[in-house]
Order: sequence, then structure tokens, then C-alpha cells
Amino acid sequence: MKKVQIQLLLTGDELMSGDIVDSNSAMIAQKLQLAGYSVSKRVTVGDDVELLKQEIAELSAVSDVLIVNGGLGPTVDDLTAEVLAQVVGQPLEEHSQAISHLEEWCARRNFKLDGPNRKQALLPKDVAIVPNPIGSAVGFAVDHNNCWIVCTPGVPSELEKMLDQTILLELNRRFPDLAKTSVSHLPVFGLGESKVQQMISEQIPEWPDAVELGFRASLPIIDVKLTTRTLEGENARAVCLDQLKALLGAHIISDKQETLPQRVVGLLQQQGKTLATAESCTGGLIASQITSVSGASSVFEMGIVSYSNRIKSQLLTVDPVVIAQQGAVSEEVVYQMAQGALSQSGSDYCIAVSGVAGPEGGTDEKPVGTVWVAWGDNQKIETEILYFPGPRSYFQQVVAAVGLDLIRRRLLGIEEEPLYFKQRKFKGHGK
Amino acid sequence: MKKVQIQLLLTGDELMSGDIVDSNSAMIAQKLQLAGYSVSKRVTVGDDVELLKQEIAELSAVSDVLIVNGGLGPTVDDLTAEVLAQVVGQPLEEHSQAISHLEEWCARRNFKLDGPNRKQALLPKDVAIVPNPIGSAVGFAVDHNNCWIVCTPGVPSELEKMLDQTILLELNRRFPDLAKTSVSHLPVFGLGESKVQQMISEQIPEWPDAVELGFRASLPIIDVKLTTRTLEGENARAVCLDQLKALLGAHIISDKQETLPQRVVGLLQQQGKTLATAESCTGGLIASQITSVSGASSVFEMGIVSYSNRIKSQLLTVDPVVIAQQGAVSEEVVYQMAQGALSQSGSDYCIAVSGVAGPEGGTDEKPVGTVWVAWGDNQKIETEILYFPGPRSYFQQVVAAVGLDLIRRRLLGIEEEPLYFKQRKFKGHGK
Repeated sequence: MKKVQIQLLLTGDELMSGDIVDSNSAMIAQKLQLAGYSVSKRVTVGDDVELLKQEIAELSAVSDVLIVNGGLGPTVDDLTAEVLAQVVGQPLEEHSQAISHLEEWCARRNFKLDGPNRKQALLPKDVAIVPNPIGSAVGFAVDHNNCWIVCTPGVPSELEKMLDQTILLELNRRFPDLAKTSVSHLPVFGLGESKVQQMISEQIPEWPDAVELGFRASLPIIDVKLTTRTLEGENARAVCLDQLKALLGAHIISDKQETLPQRVVGLLQQQGKTLATAESCTGGLIASQITSVSGASSVFEMGIVSYSNRIKSQLLTVDPVVIAQQGAVSEEVVYQMAQGALSQSGSDYCIAVSGVAGPEGGTDEKPVGTVWVAWGDNQKIETEILYFPGPRSYFQQVVAAVGLDLIRRRLLGIEEEPLYFKQRKFKGHGK
Repeated sequence: MKKVQIQLLLTGDELMSGDIVDSNSAMIAQKLQLAGYSVSKRVTVGDDVELLKQEIAELSAVSDVLIVNGGLGPTVDDLTAEVLAQVVGQPLEEHSQAISHLEEWCARRNFKLDGPNRKQALLPKDVAIVPNPIGSAVGFAVDHNNCWIVCTPGVPSELEKMLDQTILLELNRRFPDLAKTSVSHLPVFGLGESKVQQMISEQIPEWPDAVELGFRASLPIIDVKLTTRTLEGENARAVCLDQLKALLGAHIISDKQETLPQRVVGLLQQQGKTLATAESCTGGLIASQITSVSGASSVFEMGIVSYSNRIKSQLLTVDPVVIAQQGAVSEEVVYQMAQGALSQSGSDYCIAVSGVAGPEGGTDEKPVGTVWVAWGDNQKIETEILYFPGPRSYFQQVVAAVGLDLIRRRLLGIEEEPLYFKQRKFKGHGK
């Protein structure tokens, strides 16, 4: 089956200067992907007539569909209609359908239709109008060189409506026989990209060509993606998915695309349980991630950021003698922090962490990156010492994720140790 | 003066599928712009050998510099080195400098250098290595067709270091005669972009053409940018800068490019003071932002996330009768939370917040977005009710910033009310 070649041309000085981050291409790509299409190339240029002319001509010559985004506004630097007219060799004309739209749009706002806005109806003679249910700028499309060129506005909400209400329907009308793309996601924590790749190479050597394997790092989570573009690929993907689930096991944090805090809050809600946190080196990051999830108030009552030793004793009843003898970053202290969090809050579960975030504060015995974690419930509090040397923000992010992951594992009754216990175990003098 | 032609090639299936929004191009464009360069075109393609080969060949033929971003990772879909080798006609070789870097990188993490990671040292024979001070993937560069091709990693923090520490220096070495751009930044909190724009139009009508005014929103902070590209512009910029400082006053959070938490930690350190937090609706975000700053331990001892009413009374000695009568989101409760934070911690200053983050939990009297803030010291605790309707994450971010901003103002002895007290005052039945 022939693959539909779709390319994307974005225009705007603000995109080239870096003053805005382009989120439109991701939106277009996601919507196309859900509908079974994919974008093979995208080009971004500033508001420059010659560059735009060249790109529209070149890209339309080698694709079935060219989506142009941006440059439909009322100001002088909005050039798309003018440039398209030159490329397709049609004069610019005022389109009555576009004028009606503009008149209505202005009337709803008590505006008078003025010169700059009126420019938005001046389009190449033979284009088809693509309605814009929100903004003033209509979209427009034309067939040229066996390519369907469709021009869309840069405002994300307007673009979105146009994609949903017109462009995707037109694509399906034009390409009814398309092989559909389909994707599965597995969010993984505790295994690096190269480790996952290695495990797959070793354990699933006969990986089928029809199933594309991809990785997206949204650290500390790795999203493992299986993409198929043919009907036959579908079955192969189901097999691969099962093999991957067996291979990666409990390192897969969810069968949905959700974050670790969402997963933990969801599990606590399902089980009707509550959680408390006692944080030293992560300074409130774990509590903050939990409470970023809507509905966290039903499962989270209390977080204590015990940044000083005095507060560890005062609020979490950690024995000051133990702190003095073993140091704040020690198994006994983090254990007592966890106990204190449980008794202070009356919660079912707790996470406690105490470590050296750096860049200052490391010693030979407990270098920057060392962390003690304690987690559990009134029946059993477990502890572990791990080692994540690196920048402060990396350390805090990864320790927060470890804390949440260990509670996720406890809530699911997973007894097998995560691989990172072996890989990231602190092997210094500390233990 | 000749303009340097710089083009940008991004690679990654995750960029084409829309799984991630490309923020690297904006970062590259901004850094180049600060150094006086600009990108004329950027192309994005997936991880596809043929497409990449074609683009590297075509783009390098028409530019002085081609920055390639992405595809340096350890997995099979990371293709940049392989493709570059084909384009420049050099074999792939293991580079000893890259191997040493990988060995060091692994050693620091207690990893063994494995096959997938080792692949990252397999580079075209004659490339120059571009050091990566953070990640495993070194960058590399080669001259081809009178174009300097430099390949960089997709991880933003690694890319950033490489730009700052190697690539911009090399560009300045290669193009010494370029007209230099110079920029001043003013980080502003509590005024929107359009408000700042309006104030400038009204109060500084004679703004000189030689000084470009720009805004970059890194919400909730707005970075006001003054750019000049000529020597004569320099003097005009100094005048504009003074006018802006007078106009925006205490809304400018620092004369350096620093974040609000960095500014607050810095002020506390200078004054030898400490801070405690009592958070309800922000759930630990304020504590987490403070402790993300290195050296926070000298100024921050305690944060309490009192998500339930019981914990507000138990840990912050808020009167349960007051909670029952006035509700958790009330002036008296947030005042008592602040008092409790001061007495519990013995700190000099405190921030307390209690509000309705949503999307659930709003009432007619206290709708989603309502928040009471209390801040101060043992002499004087102030309170205010504000209203920030919007998504949960927006509400939490802006309330955290307000808390930090109010402490910044207190530490600086600023008595004038911030403009957002008037603009964002809650005017519902609540008060």
C-alpha cells in the first residue's frame, strides 16, 4: 500500500528567533498519527517571500500533502496567501466567502471590518476556503503539482478546529485505502534507554521488522513505543507487547500513558489508602509531585520537609543521639523519619528520604549523590541506600521518582527487587 | 558585512510523531541571537537514514554552519554518526577521546561500559570531538563543502552546555568580524506582557529605534529584553534601561538573570535569616523550589505540607474551631498557619498559603482559584486574598511565585503594594 507523503511548512519570525516554542507541529503530528498518517519532514522559515516561495515549490513537488502553518494574519509580515498565489500562478482576489466570514466575525465583536482584516480575504483565485470557526483568518487549499496544499493559521486553537473539522476528513476522503498507523506505549522507570535496548537485543533477537521500536525519554521515565503501519503488523505488535511486558516486568509503571505520581495517587485511591512523606534532600518535591495530581487530597494528608536535624527530631521524633552518632544520612535516621511520618499523620503508607544533594556537603564516606530511602507501612518499613551522583536537580528528580516507585511496588505487592537496587546500590564506606 | 548562513537540522521520530515538543530550536536560536547570529531555516525529520543523508548533504551545500541536533544516543534509532560518515565519505572509527569520556561517565555511575553505550564513540574518522560535560554522548564536528557541520545531543541540558562551552566560542573564532549583538535582561514578576508593553507605550513614547524591545515569557516570570546591534545603540540602551527600571520598579525581581527562588535564597543568605513554609494548596511546591537552590540548607529548616485540616491543627496549632467556623481557606486559618510555622521552626520569616487549587473543591463563596496568603516575621504577619482561576498547575505555580515574591519584597523593605494586589484581588463573597 502506498504511503501518503505529508510534509509541513511553518512560517514565522518568532519561530526562528526562538521567542516562541513551536507546539503546533506536535499537535498536527499527533492528530495525523491518530488518523493513521505521519509527517515525513517539516521545514521552518521566517517571514521571507523568497524563502517561502522556494519551500512551497520544492516541498509540494515531492509530497502528496503540504500543510502550511502560519502567516495568515492581518499584518504586513503575514505572507502566505501572496506567496502561494505566486507559486500556483493565480492572481489574488477578494473571496466573497472569506469576506462574509470576516463580517460576521467582526459583527460578533462590535468591530468594523478594517483594511488590515480585509487583507485576510485576499486569496489566490481558485483556492477552496477552509472554515475557521474561531478566528478571523480562514484557511485555504489548492491542488498544485499533484499535491494538496492547505494553509492554516498559527493560532493553536484555530488550527486544532480546522484539523478536526475539515482537514482530517478531507485526507480520509482523498486517501481511503491508507494503511493505518497504530502505536502502543509502555512507560518504564528504573531502566535506562540503553539497558532496555540491550535487554531486547539479547532476549527478543527475532524482533519483527513490521514493529518499529522507539524510545522517548521524559526523564526519569522512559516511554517505550511500538509502532506498526500495516494490518499484518498488528498481530506482530501484540506478540512483541506481551514479550516486552514479560521482559520489563514491574519496571513498567502503568499500562496507560500516565506519570509516576498519577499512578501512585490512582493506586492509593483504588485501595482507599493514604500516604505521608518525610523529605530531607528532595525538599518537598515528592509532596509537590503528589499534590500536582487532581484529587490528591483524598490520599495525601501530610508532608514534612525536615531540612534541619532539629526539625527531624521535633516533628518526626528522630532520636537526636542517633543523628549525632550516625549522621542525618543514615539508615536508622531515615527509618525513624518514616516511623515519625506514619505516627504523626496516621497515614497508611510513608516515604522518607535523606541524602546528599550537593554540590556541597559531600564527604568521603557519604559523597554527593548518596541517599537513604525508607518506605512502607505500620507492618513493615524497608530501607535502602542508593547512589545517584550528578547535578542537584537530577539527584532530586531521580530520588523523588525512586520514592514514588517503591510505594507503587509496595501497593502492587511486587516482591522482586527493582534492577536499580543492584545498579545504583551505594558501594562506598557508608555500608 | 557578510551574514553567516546558519541552518538547523533536527532529527528524531519523537519530534515527527508529536510525542515531544521541540524546545531545543528555540534555545539554539536564542543563544545564537544573543551572540549576534541567526538561523535562516530549520528542517526536522525522523530517524531515517536516507532522509537524513539527503538533508545533511543539501543543507551543508548552502550554509556556512549546519547544526545537527539529536540522534547521538546509544540505541539503534540514533543514526547521526552513521549518516554523517556516509555524507562526508569517512569510515566510522572508535575515537579514543570519546571512549575515555564514556569510561569516565560510566565509572562515575558505577556502570560497566556496555555495547550500546560504546556505540556512542563510533564516529566518522576525522571529526573533532565536542565535549559533553553532563551526558554520555559526545558531540562532534567536521568541515565539509565549506560548511562547519556540528552534531549535538537532543537532551536539552547537554545541548545547552555544548553551545555555551564550545560551539559559540568556535563560531566567534570562525566569524570574528560579525556585528555583535548585545542584550540586557530584566526579569519581571507580577506584570503581564501586554501590561508592560502598555506601560512602555504610554510612559516612554520616544522609544529609540536602535533598541529592540522583546519579551520572553518563562511563566510566571516575564523576561524583558533590550537588544542593540550597533555601537551607537549601546548608549540608547543604557538610557532605556534606566527608564524601564524606574517604570517597573519593585516588579523587577533582580538585576541579574536569576529565578525567584534563587533571589529569595540569596537575600536570606545576605541577611543571615531563615525561612519556613506552611503549604496547603501548593502542596510542597514552595519548599521544593527553595530547596532546588544550592545552599538552601543555610536558610531553610522546615516546610510543612498541611493538606488536611487535622494536620493544620496538629503541626501548625491552627484552632480547629476556627477551621470549622471559617473554613480552611480563610484569613484566620492562613494567619495561624504562618504563626505555627514560625513557632514550630524558630525561623525568622514564614510563608503560608491556603486556597482552592481545583478542579474540584470550589464553592460559590470560594471558587477554584481563590487563595489566602500570609507572610512575615514575629513582628508582623500580613495577609491577602487573591484570585487566580485556571488549571491546577497554573494556580500552584503562580501561588508559589506570589509567596516567594512577597517574602522578597519584605526582605528588601519594599512597602509599596505590588500591582497584582489590585489586579488579582478576590472580589467574591469571600471577603
